[in-house]
Order: sequence, then C-alpha cells, then structure tokens
Amino acid sequence: MGISVTILGSNSAIPTTERRPTAQIVDVNQDYTLVDCGEGTQIQLRKYGIKFQRISRILISHMHGDHYFGLIGLLNTMHLLCREKDLHIYAPAPLQKIINIQLEAAHSKLRFNVIYHELSMGNCGVICESKQVDISSTPVKHRIDCFGFVFQEKSHGINIRKEAIQQHNLTLEEILQVKAGKDVIRESGELLKNKELIVDPAPLAKYSFISDTKPNPSYLDAIQDSDLLYHEATFMNDMSKRANETFHSTTTQAADVALKANCKRLIIGHFSSRYHSLEPLLNEARQTFKNTELAVEGAVFNV
Amino acid sequence: MGISVTILGSNSAIPTTERRPTAQIVDVNQDYTLVDCGEGTQIQLRKYGIKFQRISRILISHMHGDHYFGLIGLLNTMHLLCREKDLHIYAPAPLQKIINIQLEAAHSKLRFNVIYHELSMGNCGVICESKQVDISSTPVKHRIDCFGFVFQEKSHGINIRKEAIQQHNLTLEEILQVKAGKDVIRESGELLKNKELIVDPAPLAKYSFISDTKPNPSYLDAIQDSDLLYHEATFMNDMSKRANETFHSTTTQAADVALKANCKRLIIGHFSSRYHSLEPLLNEARQTFKNTELAVEGAVFNV
Repeated sequence: MGISVTILGSNSAIPTTERRPTAQIVDVNQDYTLVDCGEGTQIQLRKYGIKFQRISRILISHMHGDHYFGLIGLLNTMHLLCREKDLHIYAPAPLQKIINIQLEAAHSKLRFNVIYHELSMGNCGVICESKQVDISSTPVKHRIDCFGFVFQEKSHGINIRKEAIQQHNLTLEEILQVKAGKDVIRESGELLKNKELIVDPAPLAKYSFISDTKPNPSYLDAIQDSDLLYHEATFMNDMSKRANETFHSTTTQAADVALKANCKRLIIGHFSSRYHSLEPLLNEARQTFKNTELAVEGAVFNV
Repeated sequence: MGISVTILGSNSAIPTTERRPTAQIVDVNQDYTLVDCGEGTQIQLRKYGIKFQRISRILISHMHGDHYFGLIGLLNTMHLLCREKDLHIYAPAPLQKIINIQLEAAHSKLRFNVIYHELSMGNCGVICESKQVDISSTPVKHRIDCFGFVFQEKSHGINIRKEAIQQHNLTLEEILQVKAGKDVIRESGELLKNKELIVDPAPLAKYSFISDTKPNPSYLDAIQDSDLLYHEATFMNDMSKRANETFHSTTTQAADVALKANCKRLIIGHFSSRYHSLEPLLNEARQTFKNTELAVEGAVFNV
C-alpha cells in the first residue's frame, strides 16, 4: 500500500532535448492517476514501461500548454490500443471543447467514455473518492486559473490482533463491534477498549502536487503535513523578480512552503530551460529544507 | 542550391519510443518548410539542431493527429523564443480554430502573425510561390480530406558563357536580350542563337510528399518526374487488405507509384508501429523500385 509518484516530465514551457514538460503518475496500489500531460507524455509512459490502460483518471492543473498539449495524443493512442474502460478527466472548463474539436476534425469517436469533471476556483475540495484515495483540488496563484492536488490515502479498515481474540475469547458479535471501531462492554461489566484490541493502523500517506504558482497562503492548509510535496521551483533565487512577474516560485520559496506546511519531504520541479545543471537548484532549496529532491525524469518517490 | 529533406518523424499514428510521427523539413537554400508536425516535432527540431525561426511556412497534410498534434506546442515555443517573423500555415480549414481555441484558453496572444491558407480538395494547385520554389497541393485518397505537396525549384535565371561574350563581342544591349531568353539578330543579319550563348541551366529539383493515402491516380500527374518522392508505406504486402481498409499503402504500392510517375528516387515512411525492424519493408519496396530508401529519423536526402 502507500503512494508512489513517477516523474515523467519536469521542465517548464520550453522543452529541451533532455527534459520534458510536466507530467507524473501517482500510483495508489496500481490505480494510476496521471497529473498533467505535457507534449510527449505518451512517449514517456512507454519509455518507463507504464501501462496506459491502468490510468483511471487524468488531472490537468491549468490550461497552459506545457501541462496538457500531450493529452489529445494520449487519448488517441488509448483509442487505437482499444481501451474500453471509462476515463475521468478533471480539468478547467475549456479542455473538453479543445479535445472535442480535435476529435471532430479527425472524424474520430473514442471507443471509451471520457467523463469530464470541471475544476473551478470557487469550488475546491474533494474532487474524487476512490477505494484507495481521496483527491482534492486546492487553489494556487498563477496567471490563469490553476489548481494544486492533494492525494490522501484512505484507511484500509481495522484489523484485530490475533492474540487479543484468543486472550479475550472474543465472540463473532464482539469482533464485529471491534471492527466497527467500538469498545466492547461485556455482560459482566468488563470493558475491552478498542485501541487495545487492534493492530496499530499503518500511517496513511499524503501526497501534494503544487504547480504552477507563486508561493501563496491559499493552499497551505490543504497540503499541511504532507508526507511528500511536489512544488514547482522554476527559478533560482537570483531570479526572484522574474519569478514574481511570471507567477512562479524560486527554489527557496518552494522549500519555505514545505517548511511552513510541515511536510516531510519535498520534490522540486518545473525547471526553467535556462538551467542545464539542476544541482545548484537542489543545493539552494536544501539550505532551507534539507529533505529536498529533484524531479528528475524516471525518478520514483515512494510515500 | 537544390532541395534538401530532413526526416523528423516517420511513424504512423501510434508513436514508439524509437520513432516519432510524421514531420520533415524541406530546405530550399535555407528557406525552411515544415511538412506535417506530429507530437514531439519541436523536440526533434532541437535534437537535429534545426533553427525554428528559419521555418517560413508549415504545411499540414490532413487533420489526423499524428500529422499535427505537435503544432500548437511548436507555435508556443516560437512565441516564447520571441519570434517576430510572419508564419504561413497551409492546412485544412479546422486547424485555425483548433489553434485559436488553445491560445484563448491560455490567455495567450502570439508575438508573430500567423497567416492561414486553407487547403481545399476542390482547389488544388500552386499554393505558395517563393523566390526559390513553387509549392503545389495535390489531392490524395485518405479517410478524410488529405493533400500531397509538390516542391518545384525555380529557375535561377540565365547565365551567359564568358567565352561567348568575348567571342561575339556582345554589347550590353545584346547581353540583356540573351538574359531575357531571346536570340540576337545583328544588323548584318547574323543570328546568334540563345542556347549557344548561355550556360546550360542546372536541372531544377522536384520533390513530392505523399502521405496518407491509398495508391490513387489523383496525384500521379502532379508528382510526375520527381527527383525525389516521399510516399507513405504503412504496411508490408501481406497486410494489403488492412492497407486498403484504412486508406493506406503497402511497400510495393508505394514503389509502384514511383515507377509509374517516373520518379528518380523514393523514400518510404509512415510505418506501422507493428514493425520493429524496417529492413523487410525496404527490401520489399526495392523489389519493385530499386532506388528506395527508408525515412529514418535524422536522415537527410539531397535532391
């Protein structure tokens, strides 16, 4: 169990021969969510051997092309590969029309259903509840409407310790009470406290994705206590003026967010094409938040 | 002078990790035309060191995504790289709306003018006349409206042989007559034939691009006597039924077109993803047309 994040692309708008635009797979027990889908994402999925058809849903943070230009190609390929399973897309309103106009131009009809869920800045919160995970949107601060996403792993239910069953000779009825989270009070008046009967629950993983944005309090509550935070860090600190003008973050600002929100680990990404080596960005962020890593393509982060 | 063709992608709809969808640069004396623009074309341009801003015009053969999904990303990058030069796009009607709706969603306005020229099946012929080359469209036979393109290099003017000037002691007026393509008749009645005074003109290169199509007489006249023909060959001969159903060509059909149209050389491309090795396709085509080569990415063909 837990959450695993695979980076498919980590560059900002201008792609380089080495780095692709934003895309990542969030894997919760083999149920895949694709977060953003820059140009060439389908090639990256192939490169890293990730099965297209395991993708249950796609989240698009905003309508800048480096976050969605690869989507129409991916849908087309899913169609050609005979996908039949429904696909849920969570995106700002204009996306549906953009996809449909391109399908119409090709006289194409996808073999599978696409269910669109419109993201709206005024209505953030839980957007998807699956068996494994709740996914929420949170407003960030970019030049156009833009959303962060929070993945909160769900409880896998209560397991009773075998020894407790034997020790107290629990009846079936009592076991059901314990599994429902209740204490057991016996006819004799004996109290068996729930927490003393059960296996300590595994910690539930929380992963937050924040890109593109300038640092802003709007999303701090939502990402609080994340085990892992992806936060854009387009620029180094000497470009903080440019970062502010373009509604992006610097390395230190991203690290500062991780610190303020009490996150355990930080991944920085969405690097400007001007940076050939990423080590200086990593070093700069680590001065503020030690547990920082780079969103390098192909890297897998387990929560 | 002459024409040079660089292959950027040569695969059919489903991209592989090895082969990209259709795109190629036709270079006529450093004036670049991009023909088709599948997803990832901008990365391929970078990979092969081709300057984006030298692209004067883009031709889109048809509205299947493997021929144009990379266009919006390329335009976006040209904008970010501060292009100011006009860009001419020749494409079926739906393209303009598809591009504009995506720019609107991003609240973007390109820094440069895009001039759209609508391709129409009922109105094929010369679509662009530059100093160096005339470009024509020709109707092909696909599932949706689809166009082939013919590049005809233009005459570079008449050059008079130095020896002829000295031998006949040509006056300025006579030289101008010769350069205008006329014979010279002197007062004495002496006739100096034009063709005996001038340098043999260099042969004018002709390059034809035909994809996607089943073999069809509709484009044979237009591509007649091409020095170089690119013709799609999606399938090998054992898949001829599938080729026919999907309005594509087999290797032998492509080779047969080159033969019928009296072309000097043939490049085959638009290969189905099912083929890992392309040698069998090459060998099959060569049985019918010996001067065949594969559209391998990065390959440059000089005419």
